[in-house]
Amino acid sequence: MDKKIAPIPVFDTSAAEKARAYIDTLTKPPGSLGRLEEIAIELAGMTGHPFPDVSPPGILVFAADHGIVKEGISAFPQDITGQMAQNFLHGGAAINVFAQEIKAPFQLIDIGMVPDIQDSSLISRKIKKGTANFLTQDAMTREETIEATHVGFEEASAFIKENKIKSLILGEMGIGNTTASSAIIAALANLDIESVTGKGTGLTCNQIQHKQDILNQAFKNRDLTTEDPIDVLSKVGGLEIAGMTGAMLSAASRRIPIIIDGFISSTAAVVAAKMEPAITDFMIVGHLSAEPGHHVSTKLLQKKPILDLDMRLGEGSGASLAYPILQSACAMVHKMATFTDLEKY
Amino acid sequence: MDKKIAPIPVFDTSAAEKARAYIDTLTKPPGSLGRLEEIAIELAGMTGHPFPDVSPPGILVFAADHGIVKEGISAFPQDITGQMAQNFLHGGAAINVFAQEIKAPFQLIDIGMVPDIQDSSLISRKIKKGTANFLTQDAMTREETIEATHVGFEEASAFIKENKIKSLILGEMGIGNTTASSAIIAALANLDIESVTGKGTGLTCNQIQHKQDILNQAFKNRDLTTEDPIDVLSKVGGLEIAGMTGAMLSAASRRIPIIIDGFISSTAAVVAAKMEPAITDFMIVGHLSAEPGHHVSTKLLQKKPILDLDMRLGEGSGASLAYPILQSACAMVHKMATFTDLEKY
Repeated sequence: MDKKIAPIPVFDTSAAEKARAYIDTLTKPPGSLGRLEEIAIELAGMTGHPFPDVSPPGILVFAADHGIVKEGISAFPQDITGQMAQNFLHGGAAINVFAQEIKAPFQLIDIGMVPDIQDSSLISRKIKKGTANFLTQDAMTREETIEATHVGFEEASAFIKENKIKSLILGEMGIGNTTASSAIIAALANLDIESVTGKGTGLTCNQIQHKQDILNQAFKNRDLTTEDPIDVLSKVGGLEIAGMTGAMLSAASRRIPIIIDGFISSTAAVVAAKMEPAITDFMIVGHLSAEPGHHVSTKLLQKKPILDLDMRLGEGSGASLAYPILQSACAMVHKMATFTDLEKY
Repeated sequence: MDKKIAPIPVFDTSAAEKARAYIDTLTKPPGSLGRLEEIAIELAGMTGHPFPDVSPPGILVFAADHGIVKEGISAFPQDITGQMAQNFLHGGAAINVFAQEIKAPFQLIDIGMVPDIQDSSLISRKIKKGTANFLTQDAMTREETIEATHVGFEEASAFIKENKIKSLILGEMGIGNTTASSAIIAALANLDIESVTGKGTGLTCNQIQHKQDILNQAFKNRDLTTEDPIDVLSKVGGLEIAGMTGAMLSAASRRIPIIIDGFISSTAAVVAAKMEPAITDFMIVGHLSAEPGHHVSTKLLQKKPILDLDMRLGEGSGASLAYPILQSACAMVHKMATFTDLEKY
């Protein structure tokens, strides 16, 4: 980002070490709760509290359209973005159901859909009606990209404050955004297109080949400065990806743990990490997506996903399913007895 | 078992197929929720309902002692079984905390601890004060073993009925039961001791070697009929393992999905499957334990664990952490909109 939005705090190693020492006094063999203990320790360092809390979690979903869909790179037509936004607003999408399961406030933000949806529960912060087709022109201007990150930052800040959110899940909806994410990750990781493209929401092998051909041609057409994440994001990215990046910067600046979802969400995380490397200290990757690029992005983030359920939906669905693990990690620290307690019986 | 306790019903493929067809109409790319969809389909076949329910879950923990601890095969002394039972009754153990997280009724059953604990919330069905040391004599008689499975069956039946339980988690407490489980799995899978022994609740390499030596000697001393699960269970097993086996037979007979926990729980599941092969149709393995024998037992059960968090505590803790995934799978079927609903917007 051209100007820093807010500084990323330092991971609190003292709180983390206090949590680690305390967890070793709990009534269980040391280390026997495995990653649950590690997660509790990470959350302590993120929040700055040896007894961390992640409840309530909040889910912020950014929706936008992608000009690249004109090239036939998606299994679904562009109209689905708006229809699914309506579905979110009516509570019928997977993420609505999972939000209810984890009692998470949910907010949808139109940051760049083609249709204009009138609905009092939708926040409209549309930058423009979808990105340009990045095969033939830059997806966004640099200014639009920065503006989209600012929208994400502002909306996350307001959402966190209003709902007293203690952990943040970022979701997205945007037909074509798997393609944009593949382009971003290939550029930022300096990998060939083939290693970061998959079937998205349901492409056949021939269609994946077509997507790869389009992306390779787009890379020739766009003049990417791969050391500059904003340049990459603006030329081949998406408005919702930029929004998620900004939202992550907001959460981390407030010591709010970020639960990363699948491939698109992790792409926004990689962009954020290229801007502010310390932000990864505030991220937990909820699940490993079936989309091959997700392996690459989680490796770039140096994170091990919590769940591996062969999911590839997005919307924040995998992160929401992982949330109860974080909550149980916190409950373990808050509520388990110590061996000293045991001596009383 | 010498006499069948209750017949295992047939997995309802019709309900499963109805669930599968319906899930394909939900507002998401087909298959994009991966294993969550498969779990919902399995639960439909288990329960016989295309729209399955698993709530409320129930947690039944069997506690017993093991004579084999005299050989120094555990990182903890035998007294810990009783102390941890007190901890369960006071609500301070990991499983109490996780039970609360998933709103699960919890019941502890003394099926063979050395100490006699007086507590109104403990069900005492003690067969005897711990098993015999199976290095030098059979752990239990055949009659005691069958009685322990009957206790498990009866207690699970009462618990399910009283609390209207819709999914069952079996947990255990018993210092030495990792050793007993290694012996059972090695015998039933026809494997050498080395491939099914690990550090249990915290052994060093030398101590693991000692445990393996003891187990190899015990195998020479005991005359195991490896085709007969009750023979194996009685000669090298444990009372709580027999109790869990009986409880699983009860749950399956009532079409109640069983969430298998770690190594000990999966050992009881393998014993049950040797008695009634169809019972595995009613089992979901909650997590993959860090204990190496768990790989073997889940392979014998032909199951893929849901979570893999490097845990090795037992008590039902891993199964409880996996439960929200099952609950979300059910919520997906019950609450998500279909593409037909979407056309209304």
